[in-house]
Amino acid sequence: MPAPAFNPVTPDDLNQLRRILGAEAVSTAHADLDLHARDQSHHPERPAEVIVWPAEAAQVADVLRFANQRRIPVTAWGVGTGLEGNAIPVYGGILMSFERMTRIVAVHADDFQVTVQPGIGHKDLNDQLTRYGLFFPPDPGANASVGGMLANNASGIRTVKYGATKDNVLRMQVALADGRLLNLGARSVKQASGYDLLHLFVGSEGTLGVITEATLRLVPVPQFMSAALAAFETVEAAVETVVAVRGSGLDPAALELIDAAHARMLREAEGVDLTDHPTLFMEFHAAHEESLQMGLDIVKQICEEMGAVSFRATTDIAERKKLWHARHHSYEIMVRSHPDKRFFINDVAVPISAYPELIGFVEQLKRQHGISAYMIGHAGDGNVHVEFPFVDEDEYRLRMEINAQIVAKALELGGTSTGEHGVGIGKIRYMQQEHGPALDVMRAIKQTLDPNGILNPGKIFPEPEPM
Amino acid sequence: MPAPAFNPVTPDDLNQLRRILGAEAVSTAHADLDLHARDQSHHPERPAEVIVWPAEAAQVADVLRFANQRRIPVTAWGVGTGLEGNAIPVYGGILMSFERMTRIVAVHADDFQVTVQPGIGHKDLNDQLTRYGLFFPPDPGANASVGGMLANNASGIRTVKYGATKDNVLRMQVALADGRLLNLGARSVKQASGYDLLHLFVGSEGTLGVITEATLRLVPVPQFMSAALAAFETVEAAVETVVAVRGSGLDPAALELIDAAHARMLREAEGVDLTDHPTLFMEFHAAHEESLQMGLDIVKQICEEMGAVSFRATTDIAERKKLWHARHHSYEIMVRSHPDKRFFINDVAVPISAYPELIGFVEQLKRQHGISAYMIGHAGDGNVHVEFPFVDEDEYRLRMEINAQIVAKALELGGTSTGEHGVGIGKIRYMQQEHGPALDVMRAIKQTLDPNGILNPGKIFPEPEPM
Repeated sequence: MPAPAFNPVTPDDLNQLRRILGAEAVSTAHADLDLHARDQSHHPERPAEVIVWPAEAAQVADVLRFANQRRIPVTAWGVGTGLEGNAIPVYGGILMSFERMTRIVAVHADDFQVTVQPGIGHKDLNDQLTRYGLFFPPDPGANASVGGMLANNASGIRTVKYGATKDNVLRMQVALADGRLLNLGARSVKQASGYDLLHLFVGSEGTLGVITEATLRLVPVPQFMSAALAAFETVEAAVETVVAVRGSGLDPAALELIDAAHARMLREAEGVDLTDHPTLFMEFHAAHEESLQMGLDIVKQICEEMGAVSFRATTDIAERKKLWHARHHSYEIMVRSHPDKRFFINDVAVPISAYPELIGFVEQLKRQHGISAYMIGHAGDGNVHVEFPFVDEDEYRLRMEINAQIVAKALELGGTSTGEHGVGIGKIRYMQQEHGPALDVMRAIKQTLDPNGILNPGKIFPEPEPM
Repeated sequence: MPAPAFNPVTPDDLNQLRRILGAEAVSTAHADLDLHARDQSHHPERPAEVIVWPAEAAQVADVLRFANQRRIPVTAWGVGTGLEGNAIPVYGGILMSFERMTRIVAVHADDFQVTVQPGIGHKDLNDQLTRYGLFFPPDPGANASVGGMLANNASGIRTVKYGATKDNVLRMQVALADGRLLNLGARSVKQASGYDLLHLFVGSEGTLGVITEATLRLVPVPQFMSAALAAFETVEAAVETVVAVRGSGLDPAALELIDAAHARMLREAEGVDLTDHPTLFMEFHAAHEESLQMGLDIVKQICEEMGAVSFRATTDIAERKKLWHARHHSYEIMVRSHPDKRFFINDVAVPISAYPELIGFVEQLKRQHGISAYMIGHAGDGNVHVEFPFVDEDEYRLRMEINAQIVAKALELGGTSTGEHGVGIGKIRYMQQEHGPALDVMRAIKQTLDPNGILNPGKIFPEPEPM
């Protein structure tokens, strides 16, 4: 596939966009362009040429049809909380923001479903769903937009029990590059009708189409919740405990690991009551209080058998929130604690049985290269983020070399180069290695649905670097 | 898309196939062809020209590459338990049976996963998994092959708790029409790496590629199980109870409905202890005996509030099996009870809140046309099968007209023309209506991956009828 050849946005194009959207929904102001030029990753910012704010699906389709005819790139934007440059408009062109499409279209409470516009933040959505006793479980941490979560198949800390975003969507409306609007999936939980285009578009990072509406699965807010913290002498003991908890048949709603360095940072920066030990954060949900207590007893027993140096558990809401606060804000705390550094964050995932081997390998690499890094893992899912601070290009290069080895190890163990952040810009380099000939099939599908390559170019596929 | 133009299988082709597979793995014997000419549906039989039995993925790929060059259709075959003609080789050509690829490749017990060849029956698989305390939950009733279940995204009675087949697969190896072997997905439960080709191939009914290996998710065999039966005066009361049970936050492992006609047939044919009432069959799984009893108490209360005329429940294994026996064998019992009839079975699904309206509509159509039919539903999923007996073409035509109305109603209610049987031959007529422009996208993907149309032609897409 040659590097796409795009046209710059001309004054005439701007007039066309204003005609489609209204003048107030089109901006070339630097302030607006800058606000949509980078996400939360280390990838360099790149402003688009124009920002548009559609208000409805038909406008999305009209803009795409126009851009496709004019060979202008279009990158969809939720709220910019991506961690792999997924929504950075690396070829410029049109940035399509969904900040004006944040409506709940319908709550189907009896079906445990909600239909939303893509721009709504998942936390805002859950706030509005409280009165129904229901919630949308995937929680990537930041208040990501639902559209962005769908486009990147986000997951986060509750996926161990409730699945990733892709497991919690039933139907979507998407706009293709040529302006066709498609309805994919259905509101029935069972569907066996033709190809599963729904899941083809989920996780395609805006490169196949743009999501204009989605019906999500909800679950009842659990009546009883508990939290537990367990600290261990070694990372090895902590991760072996993860495997044991998962194998016990217990069904944790969260099972998170931070290493000793991370625990120390949280204590020093925030006064969190943690010791310098690898620590597991766990959460359990239950419909009966008795089940909850039984579960905690089993977990405590497992942790003690695995040599935990401390174990704390609570079923009290305030106490649970306090225990989890540090974990929920660990990323912000880390960034805030290192004002002079940037962070490269990896995102490999492996089968749970291989998690100890993966973590051991990471520890060994860190020792071997004498570099510091924080480790934070959605351990119950076999997913880990090694967070490498760096200052300059040389430091960055070494960390990328180390990450290449971690990715190779994860693939060898049956895993993936990216468990939840998506490919974006940074993982492109691993795609051939991970997918082999399947990458050619992905490329053929991209070519079929977006022959001019206008949709979020420069992502997922190895291509000549953008200028 | 024009009707595909295929070449007949020549003696030279047979020699080529023998070279690839060995002579004993290639047959043109009528006995073999007849055994693979129809499934369990009413669709007319159509023998292939040759049956091949590959023993490994490389042979599958070699046969496909050869057939693609020669423009010979290839239809994959599991064990022939399909209900929509999905594996009937309507254009003749090569029928590729997986009866020799039935091996468990690896049990990943710590990961709750198993890697299998596609020909293994799901019941045989579960028998072999007993010693690990794990099982593969989707259960379509018959001992369908795992490959067939994946190809059709089969589900069945446990889907209400454990999901359909598509929810229980992590990775697959598939062979494309041109002989490329792809690895899709990964063994890590989290995956956000590129397009979700895995789920594109799941449910594609062998029209995009042929599955040669799969890694499935397993769940622990529940420690405690209960069963409950509740009979109601009216179908309406029964289905309203289904909505209430689903809305209560209980998590049934099965929630099935049979209508009064079906209950009567089961009693008369098998002496099953049922009255002439619409009856709900329920199953619950739990890790603690106390949870199980609590759940049963709630269910009993709901059923009584909804006016149940009888309620029976048990946590005893033998008693539970007896209660469920009739439901598990209801299809065979129905066919056996009507030796002079054929059956047209519909398979619509709707959101659970719309289930009462759907069922009321079906009841009204039956009254209006004065025809008899049995109704059996995976009610907890909003899925229903209306089983229409018929004798001749005229009777068949009327039932198809009625079904068209039921399908239109299901689509209007946000549902689908097929919840679990797939499109095969019989649902092709609803594809345009259900998918609109998304059907063109499915067709474009088919064209991209199988440009000569050799993979299971005559399925899913509206085409000129095969000769």
